[in-house]
Amino acid sequence: MPLPREYTAESCPIARSLEVIGERWTLLIVRDAFYGVRRFGDFQTHLGIPKAVLAERLALLVDEGVLSRISVPNGRDEYVLSDKGLRLWPTVWSLITWGNDNYVPPPNRRTYAHLGCGGRISADARCAKCRQQPAASDLVIHPPRVPRGKASRDDVVSQALGRPHQLLQPVRHSTP
Amino acid sequence: MPLPREYTAESCPIARSLEVIGERWTLLIVRDAFYGVRRFGDFQTHLGIPKAVLAERLALLVDEGVLSRISVPNGRDEYVLSDKGLRLWPTVWSLITWGNDNYVPPPNRRTYAHLGCGGRISADARCAKCRQQPAASDLVIHPPRVPRGKASRDDVVSQALGRPHQLLQPVRHSTP
Repeated sequence: MPLPREYTAESCPIARSLEVIGERWTLLIVRDAFYGVRRFGDFQTHLGIPKAVLAERLALLVDEGVLSRISVPNGRDEYVLSDKGLRLWPTVWSLITWGNDNYVPPPNRRTYAHLGCGGRISADARCAKCRQQPAASDLVIHPPRVPRGKASRDDVVSQALGRPHQLLQPVRHSTP
Repeated sequence: MPLPREYTAESCPIARSLEVIGERWTLLIVRDAFYGVRRFGDFQTHLGIPKAVLAERLALLVDEGVLSRISVPNGRDEYVLSDKGLRLWPTVWSLITWGNDNYVPPPNRRTYAHLGCGGRISADARCAKCRQQPAASDLVIHPPRVPRGKASRDDVVSQALGRPHQLLQPVRHSTP
């Protein structure tokens, strides 16, 4: 499938952004990268996305400098958010808050804590305790009080997110 | 074309949001609604989108309560952002800032001013003069110093945005 780049308003920053991150799955790949997912197979298993689609999306994100593809000695290549990719956090956060507000009952919501002081992050992205606005790397994601959806998924990403997990910290594998 | 609702992580607020606003064109329709576009024909002309696709996207946005469809006496129906739709402004703004940073040179950028005090809006969505964070309805969008792209488009939306224009104020027609 050719990548559509046909929005007419080429000088519009929203249209340009959507040409890069507006395809189906792409923002969920970026979300997973913030969770610390780095390997092709982990994205694939966690998202349940066809391999060909994942490969295409990752290639565009690498081409556009949102992800960096890194060779790991004796291991598989990994995909890591670049500075440009990290600056998508406000977009991801805005979707988290809007989606929670409208579609996820409070007991089913993941919560975010400030690594520095342990305060909870409010919808305005600030720490309720110290009022700072932490970078994504200083956030710890906590599982919901009452999990919903597909129970007890056993892929490595779901397992990592079943416990408090610092954003951007690589999801760990027992084998390389 | 059936609406895809197949993301696996159904308890994820990002996935749920993208089921509503993640389809191609949808966020550009929402952007245009913030500009004050209300009529089917104006969306269609400004976006250059096939009518069937536009009709499908508008229907989903109405179904989900992002847009309200309003009957106008002696006129065509209009689509107006609901409260739920207005709360998408942080998402739209995050795409404006990320897209400007990465793809639009400063002279080609539209700028936003605070209706209250006239100050310019910074990337953090605050007014550089009074440091308030205005609602979208209190923002005035200004055309870029050096317009780029399709020059001198003469549709009613492009004409309105060629001058300072208060967000959410209806784009005006000379005929009903």
